[in-house]
Amino acid sequence: MARSLARLVKGFQSITALPAVAAPACASLRSASLRTMAVPLPFSSKPRDFSLPNVSWGPEMLRLYEFYNNLCERETEGAEKRRGPWQRLPSYNRSLKYATGGVYLSKIIQSKARLFTRNMRNPGAAFEYVLFVNKEEQRCVCILQAGHLLEGPPGHVHGGAIATMIDTVTGTHASQLCEPVMTANLNINYRSPIPLGSTVLIESTLDRKEGKKTYISCKVTSTDGSKLHTEATALFVSISISHLLLGG
Amino acid sequence: MARSLARLVKGFQSITALPAVAAPACASLRSASLRTMAVPLPFSSKPRDFSLPNVSWGPEMLRLYEFYNNLCERETEGAEKRRGPWQRLPSYNRSLKYATGGVYLSKIIQSKARLFTRNMRNPGAAFEYVLFVNKEEQRCVCILQAGHLLEGPPGHVHGGAIATMIDTVTGTHASQLCEPVMTANLNINYRSPIPLGSTVLIESTLDRKEGKKTYISCKVTSTDGSKLHTEATALFVSISISHLLLGG
Repeated sequence: MARSLARLVKGFQSITALPAVAAPACASLRSASLRTMAVPLPFSSKPRDFSLPNVSWGPEMLRLYEFYNNLCERETEGAEKRRGPWQRLPSYNRSLKYATGGVYLSKIIQSKARLFTRNMRNPGAAFEYVLFVNKEEQRCVCILQAGHLLEGPPGHVHGGAIATMIDTVTGTHASQLCEPVMTANLNINYRSPIPLGSTVLIESTLDRKEGKKTYISCKVTSTDGSKLHTEATALFVSISISHLLLGG
Repeated sequence: MARSLARLVKGFQSITALPAVAAPACASLRSASLRTMAVPLPFSSKPRDFSLPNVSWGPEMLRLYEFYNNLCERETEGAEKRRGPWQRLPSYNRSLKYATGGVYLSKIIQSKARLFTRNMRNPGAAFEYVLFVNKEEQRCVCILQAGHLLEGPPGHVHGGAIATMIDTVTGTHASQLCEPVMTANLNINYRSPIPLGSTVLIESTLDRKEGKKTYISCKVTSTDGSKLHTEATALFVSISISHLLLGG
């Protein structure tokens, strides 16, 4: 099974890489209806991008999205718009869909499988998030709105849901630097619980790269940065796609 | 909001404790239809127990469930059945439901909220698991069947889903020793990816207790123990319920 998968994806440049959205796309986003942006195109070979705003996004989530989205481009002296320091990363409901032809392949390879963080049809019920990367500063920022299906202790987000987002953000960051990667270690310190429904910031920074190893730090804070919810370090190891598909 | 929650649950003995199922309940389980056991009773004040077998459970999941369930009782010389060294722990879709009157309270306090590991209606789609605890040996065992909605890398379980189960198993174990607790640290080493659809064992053992701190080790292996998927340590801190409800 795994070997046939390996044959199927042979020739793919990368499965885990998240292609960045260029500045012109960021610009068109702001002039379009938010509702329209989140609707998948019928019969399209382009997968639905879950990182675009939908009706469940609250004011804080939208405000931060607009803030970072504005940093995706900068105006030059001639009022010409050019690529900015930040880039929004699209988000699909299977990692397979990042690969060329992945939309079609995902219909024949374990077609029911869904990315753990994008497995809900109901907007706002679980993870609503968008990632922005700044390659110059080696930083990544995620805006997360935690839905009611992520409960752990009464009224608060499950420690595993926080770990899931930390793995997602740091893993995406690492794959931007040296794709593809697998998580080797997560070391998470929980400082203060996150109430359900909150919008929080998850920021990751590159610590160092040593050969195939990428070390990343991460913290989860309130959106104004005044409250530290969680701190973590993560280690990722570069792998080949065949290694992944054959089960490591 | 949090303060009114605190008033509502004032007088609860524990919210995070998972009451163990006594041996007679284990005995009746085996004589009943597996399908019948997982169906919630209409108009019942008893919450549905998600740790009972359902139609999605595969042969390996059922085999291991039966194995540990048989250890929930032992026969004496007079063929009398008595409580065994292991106990099956019930599992509800909100931690609030472990408290006395929690079923009713969960209808008025954030009624849409669901435990992260039990937030799916479709059996077998995400986490199917059951926990058994051995208080004499200070051990806890969880049998997990990983559904198709837990995908991370193509065809494999998301690192965050594994972290979620490690947090759940070690946290349940810690709450059996000193309730209630909050996760303070999780340190997870990912050794080998877990294919989607697999049944695996998650075993936790008590390392030590130091005042309010409980240190636990955990490993995730194939069901025959031959393959190590993940290793972790966890630290839990005992807290008061008001501390939890007021946001720590």
